[in-house]
Amino acid sequence: MTDSLRQAALDYHALPSPGKLSVELTTAAETQEDLSLAYSPGVAEPVREIAKNPEAAYLYTGKSNLVAVITNGSAILGLGNLGPLASKPVMEGKSLLFKRFAGINSVDIEVDASSPEQFVQTVAAIANTFGGINLEDIKAPECFYIEEALIERCPVPVFHDDQHGTAIVTVAAMLNALEIQDKKIHAVRMVCLGAGAAATACCKLLLAAGARKEQITMLDSRGVIHSGRTDINAYKGEWARDTEMRTLDDAITGADVFLGVSGSDLLSAEQLQRMAPKPVVFACSNPNPEIKPELAHSVRSDLVLATGRSDYPNQVNNVLCFPFIFRGALDVRAARINEQMKLAAIDAIRKIAHLPVPDSVREGFGGVELTFGPGYILPKPTDPRLLPEVAAAVARAAVDSGCACLPFPEHYPLEPL
Amino acid sequence: MTDSLRQAALDYHALPSPGKLSVELTTAAETQEDLSLAYSPGVAEPVREIAKNPEAAYLYTGKSNLVAVITNGSAILGLGNLGPLASKPVMEGKSLLFKRFAGINSVDIEVDASSPEQFVQTVAAIANTFGGINLEDIKAPECFYIEEALIERCPVPVFHDDQHGTAIVTVAAMLNALEIQDKKIHAVRMVCLGAGAAATACCKLLLAAGARKEQITMLDSRGVIHSGRTDINAYKGEWARDTEMRTLDDAITGADVFLGVSGSDLLSAEQLQRMAPKPVVFACSNPNPEIKPELAHSVRSDLVLATGRSDYPNQVNNVLCFPFIFRGALDVRAARINEQMKLAAIDAIRKIAHLPVPDSVREGFGGVELTFGPGYILPKPTDPRLLPEVAAAVARAAVDSGCACLPFPEHYPLEPL
Repeated sequence: MTDSLRQAALDYHALPSPGKLSVELTTAAETQEDLSLAYSPGVAEPVREIAKNPEAAYLYTGKSNLVAVITNGSAILGLGNLGPLASKPVMEGKSLLFKRFAGINSVDIEVDASSPEQFVQTVAAIANTFGGINLEDIKAPECFYIEEALIERCPVPVFHDDQHGTAIVTVAAMLNALEIQDKKIHAVRMVCLGAGAAATACCKLLLAAGARKEQITMLDSRGVIHSGRTDINAYKGEWARDTEMRTLDDAITGADVFLGVSGSDLLSAEQLQRMAPKPVVFACSNPNPEIKPELAHSVRSDLVLATGRSDYPNQVNNVLCFPFIFRGALDVRAARINEQMKLAAIDAIRKIAHLPVPDSVREGFGGVELTFGPGYILPKPTDPRLLPEVAAAVARAAVDSGCACLPFPEHYPLEPL
Repeated sequence: MTDSLRQAALDYHALPSPGKLSVELTTAAETQEDLSLAYSPGVAEPVREIAKNPEAAYLYTGKSNLVAVITNGSAILGLGNLGPLASKPVMEGKSLLFKRFAGINSVDIEVDASSPEQFVQTVAAIANTFGGINLEDIKAPECFYIEEALIERCPVPVFHDDQHGTAIVTVAAMLNALEIQDKKIHAVRMVCLGAGAAATACCKLLLAAGARKEQITMLDSRGVIHSGRTDINAYKGEWARDTEMRTLDDAITGADVFLGVSGSDLLSAEQLQRMAPKPVVFACSNPNPEIKPELAHSVRSDLVLATGRSDYPNQVNNVLCFPFIFRGALDVRAARINEQMKLAAIDAIRKIAHLPVPDSVREGFGGVELTFGPGYILPKPTDPRLLPEVAAAVARAAVDSGCACLPFPEHYPLEPL
């Protein structure tokens, strides 16, 4: 990042006031009468209603449209474990995206916890303040235990976006990429470089979308995860294959798909050349992908390539999912975010990429033509159809899977924001 | 409360959307470029700055103007222990008042804690998310331990408004009432009916303002707190007097001041008649005061009377204090809210009542003349001078007492909101 971009980012956060968000009133609070309704004595009435029936909290408080973005700061972006306070700009950024893309009120909570257990206890204790909880930037493998424990203990949906948001967008992009390459998901050989939270969540959801486990080779920093490995935790152990392959070099030959959630420049041009015809390469390491797009395209012309970067085509970007999956979940008051809802989100996201792009979106990308194909496998974040389409698909799936406390919303489809 | 007022209060909370607050963006988030500053990759820059220097969080995040209103729901208004969720409308109301009166962004957190220790641990773990913590509606005596422990453990100011906000406004009103009655605080005999969090905080601050402990008789529901009592906790024990008095009936004769923080109609007309000439009666029980104002005035014409109600003169209302004490504390980044800051707030509040009232305020009260005297001992919450005067007094006291991390703000005095 150049000095001027660096300064622009700092200025953006410092001006016009520190941070990016404010809390505003949605009701009148000018007169003595207003205040007697907003606070004592009038406020006693909704209190009594909620004491009688906890569901009334959704009617008389902001809970129904409020998501907390919560972290312990242990895996901030690609920057590592910098602690809770340093993560605050990221969490506030996430809250900003919730509002900007789905109209959801969101607040950030940075938890200074000495252990995963204390983190779980803290979040569980405050969870009912909110309508949903988005976990963020928590390192593996603790994040698996933390999410499982919180789903168990919290009365509202809990969603670890680094796992499931990433997985949903990745699988949507993968299904489209395979469609373009005319390959079937159950028939392709996949190599997943990386075995952290995002990688394992992606592979799990690929299975749910039809991939076959015996066709997936996962690698961590020590090489292929195979049944002879004794140095891996149970979460990685789920992906151990009975194979002779030991390295990326072994695994990549003839592979149809490379999914990189690892680090910069770990896939060489030579390795890319050894992949099967019409390969799919997702080089999602940020900010530096597993192979530079220019290099990849110079080596193979039959490639579909995605990255995590906004300055190349096909950005695998969580913002295509998390605002809308929470929008749908909140609007039918889903008890949790289940597999059906994730698959519905995948389907809705990938279908939008098949449709003609509105002029307003194209203009934001210099008027470049965006047509379903190798350079356009995912909708752009600014696509106004994401909110109505994805939220409706998620809400419908929640209702159909018996996970919703409310019927499909009468006010759907939503208007674009 | 009539059915129509009841419905108005419920409608106020349900419309136009559930609750009273929303989270809004203070920065542009339209274009791809905006988003690359608000979130990845630009957001990494303030993250790095904060990781290097935690103070940078005040520059690049909303922390510098963010107060959490936190409760366990154990003493909601006068309604009792209805649990954390039922308290949410009150906490959101408090957040609304922070914004409305002092421009402070505020979010509510309801903690479902199984013990005071767990409450403390939870709040301490999330405290650094915020610039300050306002504790609310926590029952005594746990609230004393909780506040002490959190002041010790949190890196930001912690203020239990039910104790200290109430005490500050009560003492400001008391000093003005005594001035009107031409009595000196060190010379008056006081009876305090009630020995909970608000009562003991009021009496402590009265001592700091000059009252003498041997002149204060405190009563709980079992009568006078005297040195022979063995049924009281240490917090009440501090107020035990070596006296023969056992009941309110014993204590009230000849008393100059009655401070009621107890319950409805506990002070009789006959008892009021036995008070000293020119008595001061603060009947602060809500919604029903210790003596009905009409009855009190019919018995004594030499009375100064205050209540907790907005529909009578002289409402002892915390909103005269908490938004502004936090405004001043945040603006000089006070490490805590100390006694000097509380006394400065008292002084600023009581002085405003001596000044002519702006027309805008008078109009809100039907154009009635508001002149310092028995019927006007406290400014009205809508008085625009509260913000600049109280915040400046608090900020100055914080700086002068060595409790501030920043100098007195250059942008003071603040413009009224």
